[in-house]
Amino acid sequence: MVPQLLVEASAKYPYQGIWHNNEFTPYPLLLTRVVKLSNTLHTLGIGPGTVVGVLDANSQRFLELHYALGFLGAIMHPLNFQLSLNDLEYTIRQAQDSWLIVGPEFSSLADALKSLVPQHITMPTQYEALVAEGNEKFPDLPLKESDPFSIGFTTGTSGRPRAVLYRHRDILLSSWQVVHHLALHDSLAKPTSEDTMLCLIPFAHAHGWGIPFIAPYIGASLALSQKLSPADQVEMIQKRHVSWANMVPSQLYRLLENLPEPLGNTLKVLVGGSALTHGLAKKAQNLGIQLAVIYGGADQLASAICAPPGPHTLLPSETDTLPTQRLMPLPGVEIQIRDDNLIPINPKAGVVGEIWVKSLWLPKEYLHDQDATQKSFREGWFATGDLGIGYEDGTVAVVDRLQEAIKSGGEWIAVNLLETILSELDEIDQVAILAQPDPKWGERPVAVVQTRHFLEPETIIAYLMNQVEAGRIPKFWIPDHIFYIKEMPLTSVGKIHKQNLASKLDMLSQEPRD
Amino acid sequence: MVPQLLVEASAKYPYQGIWHNNEFTPYPLLLTRVVKLSNTLHTLGIGPGTVVGVLDANSQRFLELHYALGFLGAIMHPLNFQLSLNDLEYTIRQAQDSWLIVGPEFSSLADALKSLVPQHITMPTQYEALVAEGNEKFPDLPLKESDPFSIGFTTGTSGRPRAVLYRHRDILLSSWQVVHHLALHDSLAKPTSEDTMLCLIPFAHAHGWGIPFIAPYIGASLALSQKLSPADQVEMIQKRHVSWANMVPSQLYRLLENLPEPLGNTLKVLVGGSALTHGLAKKAQNLGIQLAVIYGGADQLASAICAPPGPHTLLPSETDTLPTQRLMPLPGVEIQIRDDNLIPINPKAGVVGEIWVKSLWLPKEYLHDQDATQKSFREGWFATGDLGIGYEDGTVAVVDRLQEAIKSGGEWIAVNLLETILSELDEIDQVAILAQPDPKWGERPVAVVQTRHFLEPETIIAYLMNQVEAGRIPKFWIPDHIFYIKEMPLTSVGKIHKQNLASKLDMLSQEPRD
Repeated sequence: MVPQLLVEASAKYPYQGIWHNNEFTPYPLLLTRVVKLSNTLHTLGIGPGTVVGVLDANSQRFLELHYALGFLGAIMHPLNFQLSLNDLEYTIRQAQDSWLIVGPEFSSLADALKSLVPQHITMPTQYEALVAEGNEKFPDLPLKESDPFSIGFTTGTSGRPRAVLYRHRDILLSSWQVVHHLALHDSLAKPTSEDTMLCLIPFAHAHGWGIPFIAPYIGASLALSQKLSPADQVEMIQKRHVSWANMVPSQLYRLLENLPEPLGNTLKVLVGGSALTHGLAKKAQNLGIQLAVIYGGADQLASAICAPPGPHTLLPSETDTLPTQRLMPLPGVEIQIRDDNLIPINPKAGVVGEIWVKSLWLPKEYLHDQDATQKSFREGWFATGDLGIGYEDGTVAVVDRLQEAIKSGGEWIAVNLLETILSELDEIDQVAILAQPDPKWGERPVAVVQTRHFLEPETIIAYLMNQVEAGRIPKFWIPDHIFYIKEMPLTSVGKIHKQNLASKLDMLSQEPRD
Repeated sequence: MVPQLLVEASAKYPYQGIWHNNEFTPYPLLLTRVVKLSNTLHTLGIGPGTVVGVLDANSQRFLELHYALGFLGAIMHPLNFQLSLNDLEYTIRQAQDSWLIVGPEFSSLADALKSLVPQHITMPTQYEALVAEGNEKFPDLPLKESDPFSIGFTTGTSGRPRAVLYRHRDILLSSWQVVHHLALHDSLAKPTSEDTMLCLIPFAHAHGWGIPFIAPYIGASLALSQKLSPADQVEMIQKRHVSWANMVPSQLYRLLENLPEPLGNTLKVLVGGSALTHGLAKKAQNLGIQLAVIYGGADQLASAICAPPGPHTLLPSETDTLPTQRLMPLPGVEIQIRDDNLIPINPKAGVVGEIWVKSLWLPKEYLHDQDATQKSFREGWFATGDLGIGYEDGTVAVVDRLQEAIKSGGEWIAVNLLETILSELDEIDQVAILAQPDPKWGERPVAVVQTRHFLEPETIIAYLMNQVEAGRIPKFWIPDHIFYIKEMPLTSVGKIHKQNLASKLDMLSQEPRD
């Protein structure tokens, strides 16, 4: 099962391993540490089914715990320290953690959780003592592929975080198929044993998209660090010759701002988590970064990857109608685009609908949440809450979050996509599409634009009509009104504050600004 | 499940498909035929759990049946027409076939089976009528990954053929991992959508090693023919630009004898089924053929592949001690070398033992055969009946069939390997190692050699001593006696007739021949 990955890495790739800060631990030594830790944890009573919370940044010790707990049949709960204390406590109660293993920077947060989980092991001192005490005999607990490996949580952008159980087989199959799909199709982000990988996705998010498993499996080295500002990332990339990394688009954006030109070495990047815009992809590719895009989530694990056979590019080709990537389901994944009645839409129609996935590693339910389970998990399929368009060749384009889209006359308008298309107009600096209640259609879109130069509403509408004629968007997506604003209201993280914007819509002018 | 492979191929690779004789059927048309056939078969009462025997060479219709029956949840039994009538009948009774679908060249054999399976569908006439009658609506039977897909049989070299059940997931996982492993490690026999494949393994042997699934999955075209003499194979390779093929070593040997030099196009070959000798590998590689080696069997499906990371060669390197390939377990496979007490041998020891495998797609049992099951399937592991040597890097070398090896003083002597090492001596034309009963050691090996040139027994022993010193073989493998023979007795298929040879051992001389 999962620990076998490290056993094999230790045999096959004895000179690869983990960089943590300035220290390198080759896989055989890492395995010895893991076995020793595992044996001492067992004497503490941690065994099959024990749920162990881990509160740490992406560290070597956190990685080791994936294997040490795995050997014991214990269940890891990687704590998401980005949650509010309230939500974090909620996840601990949901997962029913009976131990907490705490990284050096999280001791005060851990203190606040002491009443919920009294048994703590702190890093580095207590942790290292456990490693030192352990014997080197391999733990020999029988493991089945259907045994639970870990509990993951959604980030809970709408409501409470929701828990899913990952079994050993889910972790293995999902990690393998990501690597294999990238390799089979000669993707630009194919990871190999020559790579040093940098995992910028916190382990609390579906185990950093599986990197603690993928790196040993392919025999790559992995660079980890407690904290990684964009400047730290660049230093790490240069110092450790990082050649492969995973991240969300906003991390890529900040990284690009800090990267020296020319880059000097190969950098392959797997991007996911939210839409990669045309502009950002182009900027990265111009720097020589080799990109691939992955689609998935905590509640479905990996589902699709942009690794089409044939010419490899993330930029839309002449025949593409969307400014977004077309993703190919991984082997073992089926994807359907469904309408409001949950009927699969024929890919020929090119209509937007909700993305449903079915896979060999799909969790069965949201733990302790029958309502959410009934809504999202049906007959082996999972409702992703994402909107997409299906294509005849089996690929799918993810165009929006369902909750952010507008429903007009019973049909979806992908707000995110429409904003991207409008932002391709040079004169437009920022754009937001908002929903307005409409007696006939239910909702209708209006656009709010912040312009760089004078731009008449007629020009915007004419531009969108061209997009309609080019088959990029349906005609009913064209906003009913264009509003002009001098400066967009922003949230604390720099996103457009749509609620605030909506509240002042009737004060905005429909006259273009200079 | 399995049929999804063809649905996806039809969407992703609409211009690839099947060559059968001179006719090309692209995947979308193949899918239509399959769906229509499936619907008519359903009206005949073939549905979930119905066992359907197929008696045909590797034809397009045979391939179609994999998917048509798969859609219905029916269980395919690919009949092995190379078995004796007696054994063939036995397999039909074991599998409990209730239908038989019969290829054009097998009608008289099918007549002989009429009393066992009264319901026949003959190709091409009845079969094509069923295709023509069917409607094009997709069969919508719910399939689970654990549903049975087919029944396979061992060839039964010792005793009756034994039956195993393959589930949909076993077929999918095993086929995927073979392709993925070849792709991940940049193996020389990586199949791609650019390839036209030739499947020289009969579908009755673990579905031709999965080619009916692999070809659509990767979007390769597949060339099939009712009959393939070596001359036919060469014609097919040239006419259809075949770039990938699978075969056993004896097929490779005959193919090489018929191939023109230079070959003119790329040919990747996946070899398995029995040991690929150094000489044959060298000959193929000199012709420009790109080789990879696969290890597996009907009762375990695919388990390991020669696709090591690093320099790609099938010829032993300077550090290799064996004239055989070291194979790397596929992801999802664990391999152990066990001693007589079934205790795993530490790879460091370099000792020969029986190969045990455990995999995500391992069948659970021999159907209707508790004795054989108890002997071979234990606690999730399978005793392969093959002898091998394990290495520290996790690779394994398959050195002999357990039944053909010699047990001396409680330790195995790999006869096949010893013969290969002896045949590296230029003066030796043919060599056979035989077992002689020994009061002290149980058995001891003796060698019988047919020499090209004069060769003293002392020279042979000195050569073997050098091999011992080089670490290639243990000292106790050195035969007690060397016998000389003018001409080896051969079986009808050209192998050395060891039984015959053993019976005349006391008439042979220990004096070297000129």
